[in-house]
Amino acid sequence: MVYQLYYWPTIQGRGEFVRLALEEAQAEYVDVARQKNGTRAMMKMQEEASEPSFAPPFLVAGEQTIGQTANILLFLGARHGLAPRAQAGRLWINQLQLTIADLVAEAHDTHHPIASALYYEDQKKEARRRSADFLAARVPKFFDYFEGVLAKAGRGGYFTGARVSYADLSMFQVIAGLRYAFPLSMARVEAGYPRLVALHEQVAARPNVAAYLASKRRIPFDQDGIFRNYPELDK
Amino acid sequence: MVYQLYYWPTIQGRGEFVRLALEEAQAEYVDVARQKNGTRAMMKMQEEASEPSFAPPFLVAGEQTIGQTANILLFLGARHGLAPRAQAGRLWINQLQLTIADLVAEAHDTHHPIASALYYEDQKKEARRRSADFLAARVPKFFDYFEGVLAKAGRGGYFTGARVSYADLSMFQVIAGLRYAFPLSMARVEAGYPRLVALHEQVAARPNVAAYLASKRRIPFDQDGIFRNYPELDK
Repeated sequence: MVYQLYYWPTIQGRGEFVRLALEEAQAEYVDVARQKNGTRAMMKMQEEASEPSFAPPFLVAGEQTIGQTANILLFLGARHGLAPRAQAGRLWINQLQLTIADLVAEAHDTHHPIASALYYEDQKKEARRRSADFLAARVPKFFDYFEGVLAKAGRGGYFTGARVSYADLSMFQVIAGLRYAFPLSMARVEAGYPRLVALHEQVAARPNVAAYLASKRRIPFDQDGIFRNYPELDK
Repeated sequence: MVYQLYYWPTIQGRGEFVRLALEEAQAEYVDVARQKNGTRAMMKMQEEASEPSFAPPFLVAGEQTIGQTANILLFLGARHGLAPRAQAGRLWINQLQLTIADLVAEAHDTHHPIASALYYEDQKKEARRRSADFLAARVPKFFDYFEGVLAKAGRGGYFTGARVSYADLSMFQVIAGLRYAFPLSMARVEAGYPRLVALHEQVAARPNVAAYLASKRRIPFDQDGIFRNYPELDK
């Protein structure tokens, strides 16, 4: 089956977590909105689906349309060996993914603490306050948690040990994003989290991921996605 | 099996979505932190679980410890008939639940747009700006979406038609919470969403839910939970 991924064509955003899973799994997919007239096709699809999505990304898999990033990954993980086979293991990876999603939402709100619909420039003062708390309190709290999970998982370096899951791919993406957004702070912070740093490297070195990252299919980080580099927020 | 629910003992919070599912299903559970020395037991459990949770709520079901609200509901929904049997239907309910979770997070941030760790009084100005956008733009956007889903679902009044799911219970809770937090704005807004209002009433009238709401097990809304009533934010 060829999947159709619907997501904004010019940003990594939440679609990137899905792209990484599809690429690691070597699944065939069309990144619909990046085709000619693709964004229009996406809007139409979003409205007309019998089970519509609140927002992109959503994935069409045969008859099914699946929205919400963690939900798409739950589906793909089971089909492509990117999650344990047993139900308990699948719930565990879903739990980690949802915790990563919480961190992602907070990372977004560092530059948009008041309203997504307003420009950054219209909430700059608030963004400074929120970023300071995010870097001082929230990132360490999340990283303590994920580092602890890796410590309990034992050898192999992934969240469930030796086998990669979609939650590992997502964690890689979050670390890469935070490094892009907050290079100074991250250099300081990540020194205390050797297992997370190693996970990031290990995912980046996986052949399918490495090939993807080197390809044109990987959209670069920029100032329109979730992770944005505003030096004034990186204190 | 008797479940053990771990959540803060004095607030509804995110634990309430789990409580509503357990109550509707008439599942046996102990609300651990509301027992003697319960909060201490919760802290200990959170640290020592082999698959720890970032934050409450988490549910112990035999050998399994399951965290993240939507993940707990995914598990309970399958076991207690609060989600469709087919995988596609389960993913659809999970998708709706995750969209509800996004709305819940935004409702929380109306009074804490800068930092959860700060007092409301220390972010009151920002809370005003964020609440104004939430009520003018975000609530209508989410409600348009959910009302549209109900319209497509056809007869029965629930998200999948005639059978209640945990996402319906959660939607009930969100409407109740928003009414508590923003009574003036909600009176205006909800007039445009007859299906959502009917869903709220229909869930509240279900015998198990009604018995629960009338019991002492239902903690009242207050100024410490997700939904708080600050009249200055309800414009």
